[in-house]
Amino acid sequence: MDSPAPVLARRESYFRPSPVRAVFETAMRPDVVSLAGGNPDLSFLPHSLIADLTADLLAQRGEDILQYGSGAGTDAARELSAELMRWAGAPRSVPEIQMTSGSQAGLDAVTKLLCDPGDVIIAEGPTYVGVLGTFGAYEADVRQVPLDEDGLDPQAVAEAIDQAQAEGRKVAFVYTITAYQNPSGRCLNPARYEDLIEVCARRGVLLVEDDAYGLLGFGTVPETRRPALASVSAEQVIHLGSYSKIFSPGARVGWISAPVPLRERLQVACESVCITPSVLAQELVTAYVGTPAWREGLAAQLAAYEDRCQAAVAAVRTHLPAEVTYHVPAGGFFLWLSLPESVTAPGVDVLELGLREKVVVIPGSGCYVGPEPGIHARLAFSAVGAETIDDGVARLARALKG
Amino acid sequence: MDSPAPVLARRESYFRPSPVRAVFETAMRPDVVSLAGGNPDLSFLPHSLIADLTADLLAQRGEDILQYGSGAGTDAARELSAELMRWAGAPRSVPEIQMTSGSQAGLDAVTKLLCDPGDVIIAEGPTYVGVLGTFGAYEADVRQVPLDEDGLDPQAVAEAIDQAQAEGRKVAFVYTITAYQNPSGRCLNPARYEDLIEVCARRGVLLVEDDAYGLLGFGTVPETRRPALASVSAEQVIHLGSYSKIFSPGARVGWISAPVPLRERLQVACESVCITPSVLAQELVTAYVGTPAWREGLAAQLAAYEDRCQAAVAAVRTHLPAEVTYHVPAGGFFLWLSLPESVTAPGVDVLELGLREKVVVIPGSGCYVGPEPGIHARLAFSAVGAETIDDGVARLARALKG
Repeated sequence: MDSPAPVLARRESYFRPSPVRAVFETAMRPDVVSLAGGNPDLSFLPHSLIADLTADLLAQRGEDILQYGSGAGTDAARELSAELMRWAGAPRSVPEIQMTSGSQAGLDAVTKLLCDPGDVIIAEGPTYVGVLGTFGAYEADVRQVPLDEDGLDPQAVAEAIDQAQAEGRKVAFVYTITAYQNPSGRCLNPARYEDLIEVCARRGVLLVEDDAYGLLGFGTVPETRRPALASVSAEQVIHLGSYSKIFSPGARVGWISAPVPLRERLQVACESVCITPSVLAQELVTAYVGTPAWREGLAAQLAAYEDRCQAAVAAVRTHLPAEVTYHVPAGGFFLWLSLPESVTAPGVDVLELGLREKVVVIPGSGCYVGPEPGIHARLAFSAVGAETIDDGVARLARALKG
Repeated sequence: MDSPAPVLARRESYFRPSPVRAVFETAMRPDVVSLAGGNPDLSFLPHSLIADLTADLLAQRGEDILQYGSGAGTDAARELSAELMRWAGAPRSVPEIQMTSGSQAGLDAVTKLLCDPGDVIIAEGPTYVGVLGTFGAYEADVRQVPLDEDGLDPQAVAEAIDQAQAEGRKVAFVYTITAYQNPSGRCLNPARYEDLIEVCARRGVLLVEDDAYGLLGFGTVPETRRPALASVSAEQVIHLGSYSKIFSPGARVGWISAPVPLRERLQVACESVCITPSVLAQELVTAYVGTPAWREGLAAQLAAYEDRCQAAVAAVRTHLPAEVTYHVPAGGFFLWLSLPESVTAPGVDVLELGLREKVVVIPGSGCYVGPEPGIHARLAFSAVGAETIDDGVARLARALKG
């Protein structure tokens, strides 16, 4: 029997598929070089050790691990996450920690709790492609503040908040990726931390710090990582951590740190979406992260990422015109290229362009809600070797000449 | 520095912590008898086999399993889910299957895609406690249609839709748990399937079938399970399946089956929340569910659940007044008690009452958005032995006499 097509929710028109997800299948093709996804290189993990750890957990405590768990997360995972907060210079107690099904689920819960349709979220320009879909699903009015050499400028944030508030709009929060930002690779200068927090606090606006890459500073160990913005204020900063980049994206484990009353409301928001974060995945993370084997694997990954970053810079210098500019990151996964008009036409689709030569990069346009200021490409150097990076950049160069 | 308390989103006032979650910690106490959570009994699982399976997966394909995966789910998990749809009499192709981080995440995505604030969702009265938080987070106007002996009455659903539409309201969907309903244990009579679908189709309203318990018919095997509502229409029914009750809640794996254009939009909704369902968990589910060992474990569980259901009925007959009524379910996890005024005061909090004698049950009030018609208690018999069930019901009886 025929029936009318279903009427979708208004927010559906704000859905934004991430370009990273849109090219996921293409990027897996063997004839395609992918510099797209922000994947950690898992070849450095001790897979047989991880297999043994997991088997022991399941054999000895399978009845608990395969069962429902607390909506806040397991005690052990919350304690581990509190320890990671300590490394970030932001010690927290277990009641402030909410485990999530990956950091993206944390971003969803924070937005669900704080953002009404039409509320303003202030983000960096450029920002993480995947979060724009999350914000869009809550019909947020995302306004982007450009990054400079030192990350977000507190004065520019103040002006953006004042502007929104002068329009009678509620600012739900300021979203910032403070360390080795996705996609720009930049860090927020700690000299700006106090100012940024004061600017937001005076205006009654929370900061949401996405710290997915905080432990990925080249040449650092966990204890020497850069301090998080959350180190300055436990009240003013909701901090999001992730085990995806320092261990396993496929496990889907992250956490939120927030003042206890907010943390408790975030738990209800999380439970409405997933009841409980995966107990199995939390147990695996807890058994592995923090161990000497984990430290060794992470150190090997960081050394490789640093080499690959240099390889990416060298490839850009070799293959691309000198007018292409970039910032050399001190950590993380990404090289962010600015392609001037002398190199490419305004409005060109960098993703489509690259695909002509079978290289996948993330187009800068995906990192902006409005028109992209200039043309950019995000190159992920994390998951591929130096030769592949060189090949990929050479392909991009050919495509640009095309 | 002091700053104003954060202004929460309007939807926060609709957040509804599930009573199951609220009593989670209490129910774990050794001196408390819990008949609260809808937990499968995992003591029947072959834990060392599962440990070995998982270890093999991680040792041989760890790099893939611990990495990001497709936002739609792994091919193997989608194929397995399509096979489970076939058992439900509702064969589907892989492009119609969207894997989710548990069925709750599927309900979240469906509501996100279809329901604007103020839209009407028609649900059963009583309904699954946990879904009311999900619907609440989208500010849905949930209206409940009473169940009769045969489940939802199509005519009553038609009237509820007509009423809402006459008020100028959009009906986002009709939500129904067709098999061994949570909490009532009732099934929708297949003789009503065609009528129910026609009633909804004529009014342009989709049905959302939550089939978490479909494979849990006492004395059934997968191939003899009752047909799902989705067996009648692939266009009119969005079907949600779960691996939580037939294998592991702690893995958090479920799926949605929907017409391809809707499935694709649901993927975007899911990605905005969690990027990708856990690859590790999907691989474990795929390696185990459907195997002979899984069939054996499920058969043993079903035999135990049937015994425990009888034990629960016997305990109610022994300890509770004869005026307490109930339906003896043919599957699933729950016995739903109606407590008349002769037994308990109107408006009594059954959860609080039970706690006086250290027994936890789910109060019927949690299963209604409005006032509860009468007083009810949901007893989960799935996860505890016959003696514990008897003890728990005896405690409830003492508390009622109190």
